[in-house]
Amino acid sequence: MPSQPSRELETFENPSPDRDYEIAFDCPEFTCLCPLTGQPDFAHFHITYVPDRQCVELKSLKLYLWSYRDQGAFHEKVTNQILDDLVAATRPRMMEVRGEWFVRGGITTEVRCTYIDPAWGRDRDGSGSVS
Amino acid sequence: MPSQPSRELETFENPSPDRDYEIAFDCPEFTCLCPLTGQPDFAHFHITYVPDRQCVELKSLKLYLWSYRDQGAFHEKVTNQILDDLVAATRPRMMEVRGEWFVRGGITTEVRCTYIDPAWGRDRDGSGSVS
Amino acid sequence: MPSQPSRELETFENPSPDRDYEIAFDCPEFTCLCPLTGQPDFAHFHITYVPDRQCVELKSLKLYLWSYRDQGAFHEKVTNQILDDLVAATRPRMMEVRGEWFVRGGITTEVRCTYIDPAWGRDRDGSGSVS
Amino acid sequence: MPSQPSRELETFENPSPDRDYEIAFDCPEFTCLCPLTGQPDFAHFHITYVPDRQCVELKSLKLYLWSYRDQGAFHEKVTNQILDDLVAATRPRMMEVRGEWFVRGGITTEVRCTYIDPAWGRDRDGSGSVS
Amino acid sequence: MPSQPSRELETFENPSPDRDYEIAFDCPEFTCLCPLTGQPDFAHFHITYVPDRQCVELKSLKLYLWSYRDQGAFHEKVTNQILDDLVAATRPRMMEVRGEWFVRGGITTEVRCTYIDPAWGRDRDGSGSVS
Amino acid sequence: MPSQPSRELETFENPSPDRDYEIAFDCPEFTCLCPLTGQPDFAHFHITYVPDRQCVELKSLKLYLWSYRDQGAFHEKVTNQILDDLVAATRPRMMEVRGEWFVRGGITTEVRCTYIDPAWGRDRDGSGSVS
Amino acid sequence: MPSQPSRELETFENPSPDRDYEIAFDCPEFTCLCPLTGQPDFAHFHITYVPDRQCVELKSLKLYLWSYRDQGAFHEKVTNQILDDLVAATRPRMMEVRGEWFVRGGITTEVRCTYIDPAWGRDRDGSGSVS
Amino acid sequence: MPSQPSRELETFENPSPDRDYEIAFDCPEFTCLCPLTGQPDFAHFHITYVPDRQCVELKSLKLYLWSYRDQGAFHEKVTNQILDDLVAATRPRMMEVRGEWFVRGGITTEVRCTYIDPAWGRDRDGSGSVS
Amino acid sequence: MPSQPSRELETFENPSPDRDYEIAFDCPEFTCLCPLTGQPDFAHFHITYVPDRQCVELKSLKLYLWSYRDQGAFHEKVTNQILDDLVAATRPRMMEVRGEWFVRGGITTEVRCTYIDPAWGRDRDGSGSVS
Amino acid sequence: MPSQPSRELETFENPSPDRDYEIAFDCPEFTCLCPLTGQPDFAHFHITYVPDRQCVELKSLKLYLWSYRDQGAFHEKVTNQILDDLVAATRPRMMEVRGEWFVRGGITTEVRCTYIDPAWGRDRDGSGSVS
Repeated sequence: MPSQPSRELETFENPSPDRDYEIAFDCPEFTCLCPLTGQPDFAHFHITYVPDRQCVELKSLKLYLWSYRDQGAFHEKVTNQILDDLVAATRPRMMEVRGEWFVRGGITTEVRCTYIDPAWGRDRDGSGSVS
Repeated sequence: MPSQPSRELETFENPSPDRDYEIAFDCPEFTCLCPLTGQPDFAHFHITYVPDRQCVELKSLKLYLWSYRDQGAFHEKVTNQILDDLVAATRPRMMEVRGEWFVRGGITTEVRCTYIDPAWGRDRDGSGSVS
Repeated sequence: MPSQPSRELETFENPSPDRDYEIAFDCPEFTCLCPLTGQPDFAHFHITYVPDRQCVELKSLKLYLWSYRDQGAFHEKVTNQILDDLVAATRPRMMEVRGEWFVRGGITTEVRCTYIDPAWGRDRDGSGSVS
Repeated sequence: MPSQPSRELETFENPSPDRDYEIAFDCPEFTCLCPLTGQPDFAHFHITYVPDRQCVELKSLKLYLWSYRDQGAFHEKVTNQILDDLVAATRPRMMEVRGEWFVRGGITTEVRCTYIDPAWGRDRDGSGSVS
Repeated sequence: MPSQPSRELETFENPSPDRDYEIAFDCPEFTCLCPLTGQPDFAHFHITYVPDRQCVELKSLKLYLWSYRDQGAFHEKVTNQILDDLVAATRPRMMEVRGEWFVRGGITTEVRCTYIDPAWGRDRDGSGSVS
Repeated sequence: MPSQPSRELETFENPSPDRDYEIAFDCPEFTCLCPLTGQPDFAHFHITYVPDRQCVELKSLKLYLWSYRDQGAFHEKVTNQILDDLVAATRPRMMEVRGEWFVRGGITTEVRCTYIDPAWGRDRDGSGSVS
Repeated sequence: MPSQPSRELETFENPSPDRDYEIAFDCPEFTCLCPLTGQPDFAHFHITYVPDRQCVELKSLKLYLWSYRDQGAFHEKVTNQILDDLVAATRPRMMEVRGEWFVRGGITTEVRCTYIDPAWGRDRDGSGSVS
Repeated sequence: MPSQPSRELETFENPSPDRDYEIAFDCPEFTCLCPLTGQPDFAHFHITYVPDRQCVELKSLKLYLWSYRDQGAFHEKVTNQILDDLVAATRPRMMEVRGEWFVRGGITTEVRCTYIDPAWGRDRDGSGSVS
Repeated sequence: MPSQPSRELETFENPSPDRDYEIAFDCPEFTCLCPLTGQPDFAHFHITYVPDRQCVELKSLKLYLWSYRDQGAFHEKVTNQILDDLVAATRPRMMEVRGEWFVRGGITTEVRCTYIDPAWGRDRDGSGSVS
Repeated sequence: MPSQPSRELETFENPSPDRDYEIAFDCPEFTCLCPLTGQPDFAHFHITYVPDRQCVELKSLKLYLWSYRDQGAFHEKVTNQILDDLVAATRPRMMEVRGEWFVRGGITTEVRCTYIDPAWGRDRDGSGSVS
């Protein structure tokens, strides 16, 4: 039976929870609808995070991104929502979501938003940066 | 009122019908569904043609490509069908459609098909090539 | 009725005002006139900002950039003015405008200017940098 | 006194008329208006030709391209018109004009048209190609 | 149940057998063993063909390439064998297999071999080339 | 007699132990098996370290990476394990392992993990960064 | 009357003296003579600065760089001298001159030198860096 | 004693006169003067030829190109003259000179001219092309 | 026992002698001496051929290229000699050797020479080209 | 009389000793021998330094690098030795040597080592970094 688009993000246990390390996903296949015109929008997403107890399961991430296909969504809002959903599902130490939206009106828009677990950031140098 | 996906390809009169010249469209925003799994497929299309009496109207091309969004379509079949539909609508002297489909199973597929008006090709050197 | 060039920059409410995040516009279509010779100048603009309460509306940004088409403008001055106008309209936490001007006299000029809301910068590490 | 946009294309005498050789201009600074919406369009033009008796004078080419700035012009039509005007002014043995128009509706359009002096082509291999 | 490496190449019916068109696969995931040292070899394969009655089924191509994983194979021989097997399975009008083998002894080797159906080539201009 | 895959990492004495300097390996030839499906996975590894008393011997690194060829291994786990094994064998001052895994389900994954000898990091500015 | 090479650098008033912003010139057309052999040397210069009260006038910069055409000049010395002359003429808050000299003896040389107004650097974080 | 710019092109005997083979020079260091304004012009030259009895000596080519440094020269004329001089000095079977001239008035000009020894071309397929 | 530089080129039997196919070697590690100055020269060689009965053995090719390390050799001569030696050892249907020599006197030289077995070329279309 | 490989590094007086500035050499022509097998090794060196009283003389650097041609040298050791020799000869404020060694066993190795004059570093921010 084929997969279905799903808002449920599945996770698996982080195999190296004692170490701060970085996982990055490159997701060129994203489409949703413009809430004003109903026409398709396309974006290329880059997701980077430092896992705490849970890692993002790859197939469920694919289904989650698919779930936007028939939804109206503004560029700024949906990029933030993807970050919120992924943070809620995996409680990472840090996570960044960057969406490169395709050109509209001769202008290309990119939205980049970041979450840092306050506790994690404080134990480090305050910047929350891994590298 | 917003646009709607449409199979109707509109055309306009070729402003220079006495000259063999080439028009090329670069269309990175294409998505349809896999007929087997129902999951989304993505492709980047390149369309090149030599108009005869009619040229492809740009906005109607956008709506036409959008019309595949909810349809199941095999890579090889849909690429040929786009060529067939564009040829039927504009009766060009020559037309090539090339679809770069995104990676599946670790393999990337590209399909390239060409139409040459037999009458046009015969008046030239038989290869139907413009350049 | 077609759009008109306009100095009025429209905004919409920031959907995630609690988060510092970055929006970047890539604007390759800009032209104005040289104030000395009256001849056309061309530039490619890059605009990056951290919104506070208001975000830049994309279509109004396009019309705003269009409004320079018939105006004489020195490279250094117009780049700063675009930053000033965008800051006045949206009161961002931070904004950078970078203009890549096309080659004149064998030399290419790029102007990059940045605004940081003093209150915002102070709450951070003093550098005002997001990343 | 500053230059003015001008439809007058000036030429100079070909210094090597006995040889078939190729001159290519790369012109990234072109803008006109969309005849339907009145909004600006941008294009990057590439012009290649084999001169016969006259060569295109560079500054007059710049002024000629400038003359489209306030004119409405369809992509396909203006590209052919530039070729027609340049052919009329210089009577080349061969000339190609290629216009790369900026993205509209998510699709990028390129128009490429070629003129070959029938007499010149016949003395060669019929293809009119220099290389 | 998971897939297994397999020498069986599956096909499906060509949806446009009346047209000569080109299908290209980009396969960066190939490994076999060096017949002399038993050490792993890696290659990036590019497969291009004009189908006749049958097309190569993508998943079975993946399994077929996987079947070399534990086999010893010389660069020149295995590239030719892949072409032979694909030709036997699909009887194409034309097919090219190009293997880019990873560097050994400071030298990178690429092997490119082509099959042309004699009947198909004769009906064309004798070169068997599609473009 | 040919080499064999081996978990034994050999080392040699650091020729300049008084200096903090960086050695980087670029390893494009890595394959293992997916623990769920048994199908091959491929990755490109980048290893960077500051040696203390011992350096990684190049040929033994090749054999070590080869040893994963027939093993099931999750992306996140194997990248961390390679770092653990290399740290155990060479006790470096700092080491980073970055694995670029090939695309699965339309998404590319990269895992990057870092070890810093606590004693070494403390003598520096606390960031453990060489540059 | 044509321009002449000139050591006189002209300036104009900074239109935004209240803001620290960056102006960058890309100057690929530079040539001088080797002081030892008298043979031509070529370089590609990159000049970046933060203006204080005066900005560098573009045409005078072109004439200034031209003035080296017939002068003997060592790579290291002339790069520093260009910085000294530009600093003397414009009194910037910060300026960097980078010269990429063409290959000699199989080796390419790049010289990069920076000036920071001590007063300006002190008011910032001590590094004098704009970004 | 240092070299001097020189119009004398030296040659050496072709070591393989029985074979048609190609020699290509990439010459990024060329400058002359604009005959109208006296200002410097720059170009990047590419020279390709099939030697007959004599080959171009590399150092003398360098001195020859240097000899234009203080001469006024139109783009089209000097490119043809370089071809004429090299043909006169070496009597090649075929030679092409391509000059990429730096941007002037926002337009980049490239001039490409070719010489084919009529006797040589006739013995081949008439096109004079080596590849 | 380590390898030694050697003029002996070893071959192995072509596994697919019935097919015209192409083998290409990319050899970035080549050095010899300038016969005039005794100083080192470097080149990057590209070798492409269609085997007849024998193929070039990779390790012996490496040793053969190594054998030039202490020899004086002019660019044009050594490129032709490598072609001659490889043709003598393997009697290919066609072979091309292209040497990209590193920059000397500001000029980069590339030499490209080709051998075609007259019998093989005649059975084809006379051009001896595989593609 | 031709040059000879030499371990003697010559220097000249720094023309701007009052300024911290950076000189970078790009040296793609380096070869030595593998101490284990006697076979040639190749590397591309990048040298960057801040001069104090003395600068590296370019031709003597070329001869110094040449002097390794017939010497056995491990990757890690020779990169450190080149830094040691250059530091001993010029006593720079800071110097970095980075060697990109060509691929061996499918793995590419890069070694990067840095010297900082303790006195110079202390007067700065402790990092010894120029930029």
